[in-house]
Amino acid sequence: MRYCVPHGFKFAGIHCGIKRKRRDLAIIYSEHPCATAGVFTRNVVKAPPLIYDMRVLKTHASHIRAVVVNSGNANACTGEEGLRNARRMAEKTAEVLNVPVESVLVSSTGVIGVQLPMDKIERGIEMAAKHLARSPLHAAEAIMTTDTRVKIAYQEVEIGGGKFTVLGIAKGSGMIHPNMATMLAFVVTDVKATPEILKKALIDSVNTTYNMISVDGDTSTNDMVLVMANGSSDLPGVHENAEIYKKFFEALNDINTRLAKMIVKDGEGATKLFEVIVDGAPDEESARKIARSIVSSNLVKAAIYGEDANWGRILAAAGYSGAEFDPYKLDLYIESDMGCLQVARSGEAHLFNEAKAKEILKSNEIKLRLEMNQGNGRAVAWGCDLTEEYVVINGRYRT
Amino acid sequence: MRYCVPHGFKFAGIHCGIKRKRRDLAIIYSEHPCATAGVFTRNVVKAPPLIYDMRVLKTHASHIRAVVVNSGNANACTGEEGLRNARRMAEKTAEVLNVPVESVLVSSTGVIGVQLPMDKIERGIEMAAKHLARSPLHAAEAIMTTDTRVKIAYQEVEIGGGKFTVLGIAKGSGMIHPNMATMLAFVVTDVKATPEILKKALIDSVNTTYNMISVDGDTSTNDMVLVMANGSSDLPGVHENAEIYKKFFEALNDINTRLAKMIVKDGEGATKLFEVIVDGAPDEESARKIARSIVSSNLVKAAIYGEDANWGRILAAAGYSGAEFDPYKLDLYIESDMGCLQVARSGEAHLFNEAKAKEILKSNEIKLRLEMNQGNGRAVAWGCDLTEEYVVINGRYRT
Repeated sequence: MRYCVPHGFKFAGIHCGIKRKRRDLAIIYSEHPCATAGVFTRNVVKAPPLIYDMRVLKTHASHIRAVVVNSGNANACTGEEGLRNARRMAEKTAEVLNVPVESVLVSSTGVIGVQLPMDKIERGIEMAAKHLARSPLHAAEAIMTTDTRVKIAYQEVEIGGGKFTVLGIAKGSGMIHPNMATMLAFVVTDVKATPEILKKALIDSVNTTYNMISVDGDTSTNDMVLVMANGSSDLPGVHENAEIYKKFFEALNDINTRLAKMIVKDGEGATKLFEVIVDGAPDEESARKIARSIVSSNLVKAAIYGEDANWGRILAAAGYSGAEFDPYKLDLYIESDMGCLQVARSGEAHLFNEAKAKEILKSNEIKLRLEMNQGNGRAVAWGCDLTEEYVVINGRYRT
Repeated sequence: MRYCVPHGFKFAGIHCGIKRKRRDLAIIYSEHPCATAGVFTRNVVKAPPLIYDMRVLKTHASHIRAVVVNSGNANACTGEEGLRNARRMAEKTAEVLNVPVESVLVSSTGVIGVQLPMDKIERGIEMAAKHLARSPLHAAEAIMTTDTRVKIAYQEVEIGGGKFTVLGIAKGSGMIHPNMATMLAFVVTDVKATPEILKKALIDSVNTTYNMISVDGDTSTNDMVLVMANGSSDLPGVHENAEIYKKFFEALNDINTRLAKMIVKDGEGATKLFEVIVDGAPDEESARKIARSIVSSNLVKAAIYGEDANWGRILAAAGYSGAEFDPYKLDLYIESDMGCLQVARSGEAHLFNEAKAKEILKSNEIKLRLEMNQGNGRAVAWGCDLTEEYVVINGRYRT
């Protein structure tokens, strides 16, 4: 498989020995300094790599050259030693790539509360530097934990004779929830940009993508999304040209949406993806709260798994979302490639054909459309079903 | 089994045909008018019986004589017809008990979105009225849905030569969460009281009992807790005597705590009860947020099920609770009848004996004690584990 990779970026993903067999260390490298923006977990318990990166980005967001990522160990709840190890990862990476230490960011994902095996990681960084190549595949593999599929999305955009490319890799699987649970996403692009405008684009996009997905309601200590722009494209900067900004934002948002949906679809034990579309809410904030509440509900997730058109649970989840609204105006529809069916009208049961509902819910991609009929607020969120397999995976993860 | 039942109360629980075989309609009756206070779901989507009761209590909270409860059908998302049916249940009950219609409260639990079978219910109310007796057992059975055990708690308190009694029945099982998910509790007592002081006592107690439990994070449309005081005791009123108020509050709170723990222990598919004690938090509100976040975490619930001392998930759940705190001061202990073990110190791993941890977690009642070392806030919450069985039950409930 070929990927459209932005100019000037290289990737590596190797096995250094944190995991038994699979790749567990990745480097993303840019030949030129990148304007970079990051969004980090809102969890009060932040892992050392995040604390380290937030400090670096305060002063060096215009000059990032590389990100080093390990999987299998989150370097979280590891205190001062964890912070020293995060810094050591950056130092080692800077050394082997011959770039300034302040131009390297660090990321970790995996088990909480265990110190990193630094000898393995340092040898891994040396090895990874020798394997840098244009394909992002090995890097995308190396950031996985309980993911079952690699997550890569890219887009090449032509505009007025020039072009730019955006490519992202991500990992998710457990603990995926609004407010960015354990998920990592790294997006690279060759547009010219400032850290400030990247930050604006990233926050706007994260709010409608990664913050609108739910696997299990837990928010991790390690989430981060980074966007790096190395300016290799010939086009004017996105901060200088509104048309280019618009195209860039659309591409970035498309990449983030696709990665977010891949994350949900590959949620631990998940068998179905469902999309919740809330329309006609009193305002957008209410729409977002309601959509997130529905995709986060264990009872809704279990009903989706059971292929049960249990519309009452969906209205109940809307009701406890924290948004204020008139429950007597709600219409609810279920949709899939097998058809569309109204299942509630004006907040009450709407007589429907149970056989038809079953047929629609047999699909592995389902839409729940809630028409609230009381304003212009709209939001979309994505969730996966809750299965016995999720419980099996998470009852035994650490040991 | 004999129960200590407050003077002047009678109960009935019969089978009227909403469920296939089990009891599904209950009446709680008082020979004298009761001061009554209620706490109702915060879900915006409130079922008609709750809307009906809230109206009645606004004007008649000093004169309640009876509560009629059906299980098997929640009378929720049923619109105007649902409200008419709730009122009709009150009317029929008033008629057969020969009390004013404004003295009857109504409650329903079960499937959402289906109109009540009023013919069965009306015949059931007639039958129940003929079976009123001192034992609360049949009534406690008749309010159950997926509960596997009846939930009854009582206490007789002697004070200065006199005495009073408090007795409660409850149901829970699915959708149990902070903010009172689908659970019903009816507490009766023979103290003298005003509706106002009952309301105060009830709210104070609910905040540390029913609002601190979690089965699955969903908040239902039908939750309610009622306290009815018929004044049959010879003691001065709880609103007139601080010592009696104190004793009464203690008894009420004890009943609510016991019922709340029974609800969690009987959570759908649950095999273990765990108690989270947060101590040394910056303040009480933070302690409550953190304790609730931990008992509500799917990952913590699954780890408890897997008997895995996954302390990182517990600190992570504290971190996303919304409370602000210093994560580097946290100590965490696990406890059961098999012993006590520190598993984290100062927010980091604390080397512990894995075999010992397994042994402690094999118990079916576990305590997680989080010492935050940064203030005087304290809170206790209760949760149950998340099992494959929960998913099985909730994937197939409606159909």
